[in-house]
Amino acid sequence: MRVRNPRTGVYDYEFQECSPEKIRETARKFSANQIAWYRSGVANRIAVIQEWKRVLISMKEELTGALAADTGRTWETTAEVDWVIDSIDKWCIVAKKFYEQHSEWIPYPITTVLSPWNFPLALSMMDTLPALLSGAAVLVKPSEVTPRFVAILEQTIQRAAGLHDVLCITAGTAETGALLADKADLICFTGSVGSAKKVLHAASKKMIPVLFELGAKDPAVVLSSANLEMAASAIVKGSTTNAGQNCLSFERIYVHSLVYDALVDLLAAKANELQFVDDQMVKGEIGPIIYEKQVLTINSHLEDAFSLGATLVTGSKKCEEINGGYYCRPTVLANVTQNMLVMREETFGPIMPVIPFDQTDELIEMVNASEYALGAAVFAGSDEEALAVAQRINAGSVSINEAALSAILHYGDSVSFNWSGIGGQKIGPENFSRFVKKKNIHLSS
Amino acid sequence: MRVRNPRTGVYDYEFQECSPEKIRETARKFSANQIAWYRSGVANRIAVIQEWKRVLISMKEELTGALAADTGRTWETTAEVDWVIDSIDKWCIVAKKFYEQHSEWIPYPITTVLSPWNFPLALSMMDTLPALLSGAAVLVKPSEVTPRFVAILEQTIQRAAGLHDVLCITAGTAETGALLADKADLICFTGSVGSAKKVLHAASKKMIPVLFELGAKDPAVVLSSANLEMAASAIVKGSTTNAGQNCLSFERIYVHSLVYDALVDLLAAKANELQFVDDQMVKGEIGPIIYEKQVLTINSHLEDAFSLGATLVTGSKKCEEINGGYYCRPTVLANVTQNMLVMREETFGPIMPVIPFDQTDELIEMVNASEYALGAAVFAGSDEEALAVAQRINAGSVSINEAALSAILHYGDSVSFNWSGIGGQKIGPENFSRFVKKKNIHLSS
Repeated sequence: MRVRNPRTGVYDYEFQECSPEKIRETARKFSANQIAWYRSGVANRIAVIQEWKRVLISMKEELTGALAADTGRTWETTAEVDWVIDSIDKWCIVAKKFYEQHSEWIPYPITTVLSPWNFPLALSMMDTLPALLSGAAVLVKPSEVTPRFVAILEQTIQRAAGLHDVLCITAGTAETGALLADKADLICFTGSVGSAKKVLHAASKKMIPVLFELGAKDPAVVLSSANLEMAASAIVKGSTTNAGQNCLSFERIYVHSLVYDALVDLLAAKANELQFVDDQMVKGEIGPIIYEKQVLTINSHLEDAFSLGATLVTGSKKCEEINGGYYCRPTVLANVTQNMLVMREETFGPIMPVIPFDQTDELIEMVNASEYALGAAVFAGSDEEALAVAQRINAGSVSINEAALSAILHYGDSVSFNWSGIGGQKIGPENFSRFVKKKNIHLSS
Repeated sequence: MRVRNPRTGVYDYEFQECSPEKIRETARKFSANQIAWYRSGVANRIAVIQEWKRVLISMKEELTGALAADTGRTWETTAEVDWVIDSIDKWCIVAKKFYEQHSEWIPYPITTVLSPWNFPLALSMMDTLPALLSGAAVLVKPSEVTPRFVAILEQTIQRAAGLHDVLCITAGTAETGALLADKADLICFTGSVGSAKKVLHAASKKMIPVLFELGAKDPAVVLSSANLEMAASAIVKGSTTNAGQNCLSFERIYVHSLVYDALVDLLAAKANELQFVDDQMVKGEIGPIIYEKQVLTINSHLEDAFSLGATLVTGSKKCEEINGGYYCRPTVLANVTQNMLVMREETFGPIMPVIPFDQTDELIEMVNASEYALGAAVFAGSDEEALAVAQRINAGSVSINEAALSAILHYGDSVSFNWSGIGGQKIGPENFSRFVKKKNIHLSS
């Protein structure tokens, strides 16, 4: 299968999809290997994973290079690789503590991880690491849109003794994903609602549990008492990081009407400071839109907004083609209404549509009208004021005076609501237990 | 709809299925009422539920009478009603503590509870009570096989001020169940794997979570060191209570070959002490098989076993018709093999098929071969010996030297495995959180 480069538009990479026979054989081997892997104990599993960490560090340059080609971005890629490597120690500590307390809880034997293209490595490893440490064998299929890092990652697996007996990462399309899901005792899926429904239907026939993290339309709420300078910085950062290609991006901005004009001006000024990543991938903050089809979504949301009366304060009227890649400027929209696509569906671009409000009840109704409910943020002059609003927001994680990303990356216990997902969130010690079947041995006495 | 009496075979009760319009209207009202119910706070909800408890106690006689007619049993019915009434205080304490710790976690607005005929009241209330206390509105549909208690329970709801705004119990078939499931944000289902798959398919389209407790084929394991007298008593009790119509019945007995003959003799002797419930429902332990179709299942399992070489040590060759009701004697089978239906599928009758084993590995393979994995028990001379086996058994709850029922009723944290269910177990403080969406508010600092 030929793969497009997001920066050049050129199909400059190719991979061979795994055959159904190979998948069947791997699953059969993993079913047998998993028993020994689990019975070898958590200390042994930690040792193998730590060896993998050393290999990952030794091949960090190759991995980062492939991932940068996949996504067309530089600093986000460095951060992603570092984040994943750092997370290994964290999960090892969690796993050790967990099995000290719950020695009798047992893993779902085979976990299948299906991951998306926006953070190809991080979202592959977020479920894989705890699943492996729980004692599961893991089949991973990242998105076919960003498969360049897969071959390198598979090399690191081959080089960490014992790991390839229970971990396989393979490039492939939804077809391969369906075959891998069919072999699973637990499915972890991160991606779109549409694909999720297909996966869920397959899982419902086998009656196996799923852990889904799906779409989002996170709101940022700015009360009149907020420090506007700080709020605007956090919102622009939260909306434009990775060109908005995050499940946790702010995609709806609600501002008290008293400070609406001032905030819109600040957002526009801060948005204008950001530049497209340059030819050499050295300067600039805003990389290309990775997936070509996403460009169509962004454009259709913008077109719909303008046709319904929205005005462009600053940014792109539509995605701009530069040297074959598609880019979208940090964009601030005014005269926005709730019925516009850009307020209802996931855009996945650096777009900030801003709506004023007067009353809290009216605000809450608008905020909670979304089909999605992953994260949110409230900016206010005092924690008390912010909390009063945060408590009424329908979302798994609500940040106060910070971008929502922080709340999620902070180790807290939460679940996604509505169409944002099923099952607990991916990070944090409490969530290790998502990968095991809880078992209770009761001694009579 | 006309309903059969399990003791007489006479269709002596009738109910009117709820209309789709009525269901739609109730769901619409509940959606609005639930917001006030949740916002009124846990102390208020506890007060309403405690008022309900007083009404339930005042109508205990009517409720017990209807339930006894539904199920054809006496002492189990008294125990069931008492257990439910006692559970109210327990859940109120759990709910209060929970909301002191997790004030920001919010309920799935509408919970639909679909419950089976074997413990019509207990299995309706087990999910309803924590859901209500979490702040949800609850739609309950018990099985159409045992609907007599529904009208009485609905009267108690009408009499507890405020409760009928957020709780509705209605008699109905799977059709009504599907309509109620369609209105749900969370579905709790207890019943067969076949029906569960349909519910799961519906839930997967809406992408809402489910809590399922389904079939089981619980094994009892007797090691050579066990106190055989005690083991036999626990096994007969665990297999024959409620004529085996429990998800937690022992339906497979594995005995070390050194003590096989002795245990089979003890099982037969203890089984023979039990009598059918008499005409007046005053004497006897073994009530009728409640659901006519279950009689066919039990008979087909017995017929299959005998045709494959099993021998009847004591009990019924097939269910016996007495005055229009169907009864099955506590039955011990020898010369049993793993491939018989009675060892593979849920029988739901007081049948004890016994298989000898020599090696632990062989035992574990047989025990874990089941599609089901709810409970299990191990009987041994020492806890150490028992634990070594229990740790290798694939089941949510494993009892040592006791019937599995105890392990489940004991407040422990576990989940059902395989086809025995999805989601955590129904009882215990940890499991209150199954009814809420966990939300994390993150203050920057």
